[in-house]
Amino acid sequence: MELKDALTKLSALQAKMSAYGHAMSLIYYDGATTAPKGTAQNRGQTLSVLSEETYKLSTGEETVELLEYLDAHKDELDEKNARIVLLMLKDIREMQKIPMDEYIAYQQLMVEADDVWHRAKETSDFELFRPLLEQIFDYEKKFAAYCAPEMHPYNYCLNKYEDGLTMDKCDEFFSTLKSRLVPLIKKIGEREQLSDESIKGDFDERDQEKFSLELMRTMGIDLDHCGLGTTEHPFTTSLGSHHDVRITTNYSRTDLSSSMFSVIHEGGHALYDLNSADDLAYTVLDGGVSMGIHESQRRFYENLLGRSRAFVEYIFPKMCECFPEQMEGYCAEDVYRAINRVTPSLIRTEADEVTYCLHVMVRYELEKRIMSGELEVKDLPREWNRLYFEYLGVEVPNDREGVLQDSHWSGGGIGYFPSYALGSAYGAHLLRRMKETVDVDACLREGNFAPINEWNREHIWKFGSLYKPADLLRSALDEEFDPSAYTDYLEEKYGELYGI
Amino acid sequence: MELKDALTKLSALQAKMSAYGHAMSLIYYDGATTAPKGTAQNRGQTLSVLSEETYKLSTGEETVELLEYLDAHKDELDEKNARIVLLMLKDIREMQKIPMDEYIAYQQLMVEADDVWHRAKETSDFELFRPLLEQIFDYEKKFAAYCAPEMHPYNYCLNKYEDGLTMDKCDEFFSTLKSRLVPLIKKIGEREQLSDESIKGDFDERDQEKFSLELMRTMGIDLDHCGLGTTEHPFTTSLGSHHDVRITTNYSRTDLSSSMFSVIHEGGHALYDLNSADDLAYTVLDGGVSMGIHESQRRFYENLLGRSRAFVEYIFPKMCECFPEQMEGYCAEDVYRAINRVTPSLIRTEADEVTYCLHVMVRYELEKRIMSGELEVKDLPREWNRLYFEYLGVEVPNDREGVLQDSHWSGGGIGYFPSYALGSAYGAHLLRRMKETVDVDACLREGNFAPINEWNREHIWKFGSLYKPADLLRSALDEEFDPSAYTDYLEEKYGELYGI
Repeated sequence: MELKDALTKLSALQAKMSAYGHAMSLIYYDGATTAPKGTAQNRGQTLSVLSEETYKLSTGEETVELLEYLDAHKDELDEKNARIVLLMLKDIREMQKIPMDEYIAYQQLMVEADDVWHRAKETSDFELFRPLLEQIFDYEKKFAAYCAPEMHPYNYCLNKYEDGLTMDKCDEFFSTLKSRLVPLIKKIGEREQLSDESIKGDFDERDQEKFSLELMRTMGIDLDHCGLGTTEHPFTTSLGSHHDVRITTNYSRTDLSSSMFSVIHEGGHALYDLNSADDLAYTVLDGGVSMGIHESQRRFYENLLGRSRAFVEYIFPKMCECFPEQMEGYCAEDVYRAINRVTPSLIRTEADEVTYCLHVMVRYELEKRIMSGELEVKDLPREWNRLYFEYLGVEVPNDREGVLQDSHWSGGGIGYFPSYALGSAYGAHLLRRMKETVDVDACLREGNFAPINEWNREHIWKFGSLYKPADLLRSALDEEFDPSAYTDYLEEKYGELYGI
Repeated sequence: MELKDALTKLSALQAKMSAYGHAMSLIYYDGATTAPKGTAQNRGQTLSVLSEETYKLSTGEETVELLEYLDAHKDELDEKNARIVLLMLKDIREMQKIPMDEYIAYQQLMVEADDVWHRAKETSDFELFRPLLEQIFDYEKKFAAYCAPEMHPYNYCLNKYEDGLTMDKCDEFFSTLKSRLVPLIKKIGEREQLSDESIKGDFDERDQEKFSLELMRTMGIDLDHCGLGTTEHPFTTSLGSHHDVRITTNYSRTDLSSSMFSVIHEGGHALYDLNSADDLAYTVLDGGVSMGIHESQRRFYENLLGRSRAFVEYIFPKMCECFPEQMEGYCAEDVYRAINRVTPSLIRTEADEVTYCLHVMVRYELEKRIMSGELEVKDLPREWNRLYFEYLGVEVPNDREGVLQDSHWSGGGIGYFPSYALGSAYGAHLLRRMKETVDVDACLREGNFAPINEWNREHIWKFGSLYKPADLLRSALDEEFDPSAYTDYLEEKYGELYGI
């Protein structure tokens, strides 16, 4: 094989995988948006064919041979192709270490676990889900031992979602957060609560959609390459390449902020995906590099910008145009206070900016202890409830609103949660760095996202998955990541809001 | 190879082709409905990968070997598998007869011709399109000579869309039509025109959508397996199998009948597709058998039922519920007359029930003469205009509204048009037969489509593509097809409407 031919094959292989990815993502998107409700089984039939083809394509003999050849010639590859080969081989080598029968059994377990988790959540019955969750944790431990025997099994899990992340880093990060957020939340609880009346009312769905598109345009999202759909649970997906991205939202008739922040949140993900360098399209490097960096971008837009006073000053007149009756009698400051109201609560996805990371921390500590053999799955509900009371001061009334609330574990996503909290903190540090050269508040007050987006494009977005997340972050920050940027930001913002 | 294994492989092959078909149809549907406008190139990239895979799959060595083996054992196959092998082999054997370089050149010509036709139509410039259309007809003649040297080349074309159709049959059919429709149209022209005021006005799109769903429910379309979208040009598509069908419509703000009859029209196609027998799903026999039969079903619903007095009596109160202001002062009879107004016109797709077939006849005669070498492409506009005046009494002011109006020729669809007219006539004969056992008018007056659909399901739909169209039709009619069922129907209905 000549190197040139091998690289041509590598391109063709990735183009094919992108095409299958396009098809599968679109089938998923269709299922969540417009498909008639009796068609899930039909989609399942097609998805099972396409995922089998993708699996064969990415792990087949010909592919392995090609990648091994290219790996043997890695010194002759450019940076981009070297990274592509490394990422593709990593997955294959991992797969090769896991006995096929266990891999298949695990896939089947996921399907069953998802179904059982749904029913367990509905009936708030942890015992129903427990045996499956035990098996999931057991498999994770076994796979960690196969794939990375030199590592602590939980570090193996963390690495799947954020390359290079360790328990030591997480411990340090969460301990900083805990030491500063728990007292802050306590103080906020002693102050008078902010009113959220200004964002409650009766909001027509079509007006909300118009407002959503206005928000996307303001954020600098290219509507020629990014669509907006409606789904029960909002999400972002890319179809084939960064040239076609879709975000979805969900409209609450009574709460304007629900869809508003869904759109900004998913819009943040979309901006990251849309702005990969064009030469990364149809390669495995197209799109965001890790969960943590992706979260940093979406929280950057949703919270650091979207919930800032400067942005509210810009967007408030637009809100008044879209909802003249509902906004009557309110001012921008009312909206600013309404969308920044802090309330310790039970459900992670509904949490405010200050309490959010504590929800994540509960999950992190529990996962770590189970993966270390210090906690048994059967004791999870008790420990969950104890930590929620300790960190957030809330009593968990049942497992549905407690340990069963998230879908991650039933899908095998052990080690996924920390990236949510890390992303928030990455975002705050990135903002601090950006402010050294960009007058972010002035931009926001004018609704001019261009300089902000330009900074993110040049420092983060355009690289796609070309660099390891830790390296990308260090290079964007031009220093080591410092979680206190985040706690400083929260203390300052909420200290002012609550008069602390 | 064991026969049992070969049949398992045949199933797997069809499942895979259905999955690719699902993906490609959905990508097309997405492009026509919700995709952001800058994403066409991205879809093109994915479609080119998927169509190459489909081509390889359906004509690859392994497939040919499998089908040849099964063909050699055809006496041991059941009816269903025998038909599957026959249909799949037919395409492959045809392809094998055409030199690969000519096949590829023809595919490229189609792409160019589509683009040039759009521009030629826009500027009403036939000369721009002429060289490409000449090549298209030349290729069709060449391919006919390669694939079916024993046939007249135009019979080869007709057979592609309606297996078993010949010029002789068409000539007889169209001559019956011409001898009875041309005088009818002339008489109608001498009578006072019917008013269409009742369906004109200002109709809100959301109200029209609600009404469309009401129409679909009334027709007995299972909304759990059939979705409704909005596109510039309405169409129907199946995704993977008959378990997921989508129809689209287009809402005219000022003309209620536009979307109303699009929905009933596409709904007729959808009913046919949705009601293949379940054991045909994920095989090449799933869905309608030919253009002609498909047209018969959609015209059955759109015209024979949808434009009947009995149906209007049922649906008029629903129209009043959806559009109370617009319907004020009108009665069911007003609507019945409005939707059955006959006006000889220039554009086929806007033609009424009586003049429609004459539009088709013009195209049939021209195609036949070109394929027979009796007419040159350069003389098409002149002949087109002459025939329009002769049959319909209208003067064609330009080629945009004349010979350039349809997209079929630019896509190589020579021989496609006659199935439109045949379908209308098949439908009328099917209705005559159905009325022997079903009180169709009574059903329509009650909005009860169940007995009508049941008849169609048992006689047409459930068979999918199991039988040749001519055989299917003969078995449903229990006699030879008779075009005078159609002309009788038109003379009776429009004679009464126009007092002839």
